[in-house]
Amino acid sequence: MKKLFFPGLFFLSLLGSATYGQVSDSVRIKNISDEVMVNSGAYANLRYLCKQIGPRLSGSANAQKAVEATARMLREAGADTVYLQPCMVPHWVRGAKEAGFIRQANGQKYLLRLCALGNTVGTGKKGIDAEIVEVKSMAELQQLGNAVKGKIVFFNIAMNPTYIRTFRAYGENGVGRRAGPAQAARYGAIGAMVRSLASNEDIHPHTGATQYNDSFPKIPAVAISTADAVWLSAALKKSNKLTGSFTTNCMMLADAPSFNVIGEIRGTKFPKEIITVGGHLDSWDLAEGAQDDGTGCMQSIEVIRALKALGIKPQRTIRAVMFMNEENGGRGADAYLEAAKKNNEQHIFALESDAGGFTPRGFGLDMPETKKDKIRSWSSLFTDYEGNEMVNGGGGSDIGPLKKIGAALAGFMPDSQRYFDVHHAETDTFEAVSKRELDLGAVNMAALVWLVSEYGL
Amino acid sequence: MKKLFFPGLFFLSLLGSATYGQVSDSVRIKNISDEVMVNSGAYANLRYLCKQIGPRLSGSANAQKAVEATARMLREAGADTVYLQPCMVPHWVRGAKEAGFIRQANGQKYLLRLCALGNTVGTGKKGIDAEIVEVKSMAELQQLGNAVKGKIVFFNIAMNPTYIRTFRAYGENGVGRRAGPAQAARYGAIGAMVRSLASNEDIHPHTGATQYNDSFPKIPAVAISTADAVWLSAALKKSNKLTGSFTTNCMMLADAPSFNVIGEIRGTKFPKEIITVGGHLDSWDLAEGAQDDGTGCMQSIEVIRALKALGIKPQRTIRAVMFMNEENGGRGADAYLEAAKKNNEQHIFALESDAGGFTPRGFGLDMPETKKDKIRSWSSLFTDYEGNEMVNGGGGSDIGPLKKIGAALAGFMPDSQRYFDVHHAETDTFEAVSKRELDLGAVNMAALVWLVSEYGL
Repeated sequence: MKKLFFPGLFFLSLLGSATYGQVSDSVRIKNISDEVMVNSGAYANLRYLCKQIGPRLSGSANAQKAVEATARMLREAGADTVYLQPCMVPHWVRGAKEAGFIRQANGQKYLLRLCALGNTVGTGKKGIDAEIVEVKSMAELQQLGNAVKGKIVFFNIAMNPTYIRTFRAYGENGVGRRAGPAQAARYGAIGAMVRSLASNEDIHPHTGATQYNDSFPKIPAVAISTADAVWLSAALKKSNKLTGSFTTNCMMLADAPSFNVIGEIRGTKFPKEIITVGGHLDSWDLAEGAQDDGTGCMQSIEVIRALKALGIKPQRTIRAVMFMNEENGGRGADAYLEAAKKNNEQHIFALESDAGGFTPRGFGLDMPETKKDKIRSWSSLFTDYEGNEMVNGGGGSDIGPLKKIGAALAGFMPDSQRYFDVHHAETDTFEAVSKRELDLGAVNMAALVWLVSEYGL
Repeated sequence: MKKLFFPGLFFLSLLGSATYGQVSDSVRIKNISDEVMVNSGAYANLRYLCKQIGPRLSGSANAQKAVEATARMLREAGADTVYLQPCMVPHWVRGAKEAGFIRQANGQKYLLRLCALGNTVGTGKKGIDAEIVEVKSMAELQQLGNAVKGKIVFFNIAMNPTYIRTFRAYGENGVGRRAGPAQAARYGAIGAMVRSLASNEDIHPHTGATQYNDSFPKIPAVAISTADAVWLSAALKKSNKLTGSFTTNCMMLADAPSFNVIGEIRGTKFPKEIITVGGHLDSWDLAEGAQDDGTGCMQSIEVIRALKALGIKPQRTIRAVMFMNEENGGRGADAYLEAAKKNNEQHIFALESDAGGFTPRGFGLDMPETKKDKIRSWSSLFTDYEGNEMVNGGGGSDIGPLKKIGAALAGFMPDSQRYFDVHHAETDTFEAVSKRELDLGAVNMAALVWLVSEYGL
């Protein structure tokens, strides 16, 4: 037995020295994982953000409360410095709750579960009332052309259920919400109803920004629940012609002052090389903004907390950023880039978490191939933590601008099955988040940020 | 451009013929995926099972309703034959709701959220009342030995949060529930309180079976909620001595008749080679049994439905089995094996889904290496559907007995982060299940079952 034992040890020690870096890295990452899975503050912080503050649309009083709360959380996490970075943000308000209905053949009104799309104009108190015309694609709208004049266009574009990763459907099938109202206006429509961009069928409308086109009138636009979209489409099939009405009371006010919230651990060897890890702090006004994107913010703060708790002194500067105004403007992201330029900052890497706090699958990489190769070479270090898929693409809208100054970008990629059930709807609550899933995301994010801080890219 | 185009086509066609089988398999699996993701009946069936029937412990009237309902579902799914396979099951009943409390230092009672463990004896109407002694491991109990005589042992063994895959903690840290009461009785304890075997901290007690040892008295045993376990442990630290009481009204009745529910598609080429895919139909009496294991049953029925809907004629016989009595006896599994032996059935493969209807990660394989190699060679076919991890281990308690007659075993392996939040508790409801996650599991299960039906093992 001993005869076998010693050669075994010898072999192991050779192996150990050959791959010393990786063995040591794997131990360090296990330390990070244990620290997060046992002592994470992310879930309690998320509860505070969702339940004590709640919805926090840019320009709102709640957004300011969220700024103050996350600055406090970053200080409690042990960040070396915490500061606010000013930015002006659009200030859209929903006003009184919206209402709308369809006149049924039997004379009764079918009340729609609806909400104004973000950044839209209101209808005025009298609302709008017109025939409903359904389209299932932008091509169909184009074909109808001026036939939609004076009418309300109903964009009934469902998220494609056969796409296994739901962000693909969100991209492709989101055209109705993003560009539908502007295109309907091009042909003279007076309003737009958009099927909620949701992966499930329920009664909750999902808001989200729409983009007007300055060449056409700005027309009022609402999202209706998926259940109502299914009902309305069936009703339109049965009836020659249906009319309906909706009233929205939203408006765009003057830009308001706000902030990104930033907390740093200063690098010991290369303090000028900056690694950003972040999410966005604003949420839609209808939702607690738990999965979108309270989780990304709380995970970013947890990265700081875990590294500090373990006494890890990163070689490069790690900066957790709560970006303001991702939902309806991106002004926080712009301000972050401008400040980086002004201060001649050297941004080597940025990681965004804005796809929910679900169980990790990996990271999307948007950077030159040589840097991707380096990150891919670490992939096996993530296997035990479920986040070892290193795929092309990724990044995110808040870190996107940093590409202009040479930052390598990565997007945290959690499982995507449940995200669009709650995204931008009142169902995006604290209760929709699993503590273990949230923390496991933070483990993978902290591990990647730590590896980059140790080895550069 | 054309110059490049034709060689490209030529190359593709060569590649096509070289890997014809795989290309064709990937198309077939895409068909299965599209069929399930668009037309699956699993979610609606699960709603019926959870909301129209609900808890369905072996021997209960609800268990019989579930037998009838799933037989109907299998017929509606298009199974060639549907039949019931008789088995006798233990008939444990909870009786009137349990109660219990701890006497606090201030004289007030702290009411515990508790439930009797499955298969335990009741306390009698007067309940039991004694000093509480906490242990955090079986070793600690052994050390105390006869010092627990006449007392209630509080097994405060938390699920280890640092284990990323939660089944590992369930295995290791479940010893208190499974063997604690018997071992406490060995040393003369009169009752046991077990910290709920749960991955989260909340107020819901989680039941589950405990195993008495015939050499020692059968003592009453309850699970208390994790929140109460945390409270009680802290209270015991502050106080020299605490007493408490609980009353349970459960009892084991005479064995009752019940059934496994079976639906088959008969194989076209090798009808005698049987592939089993199943879950268990019984649930604990406190829970709707959605994730445990309504999902596994509904996925197994969906395998049948999807193959039939696509007109796929499998070469080998595919049998969906709803096993009865997994939770507190395993009698359905025993009956299934006995029938297989009696009928000289040739069981080549069995797949169990009893780890929840969460997003797939892959399959655990329990079979000879050559068969594992064959399944691993298909792994890339599962990548697009999130289920491509083919790991060692797996199987499941209902298909386990089939190993004796040579079946290769596999366990569907979904993400494990949320399972033990709800497992065996009243929070295991239909609402805890995501439609897309459930269906995506069925996609992977159907794909694996179809591959085995096509190529054998």
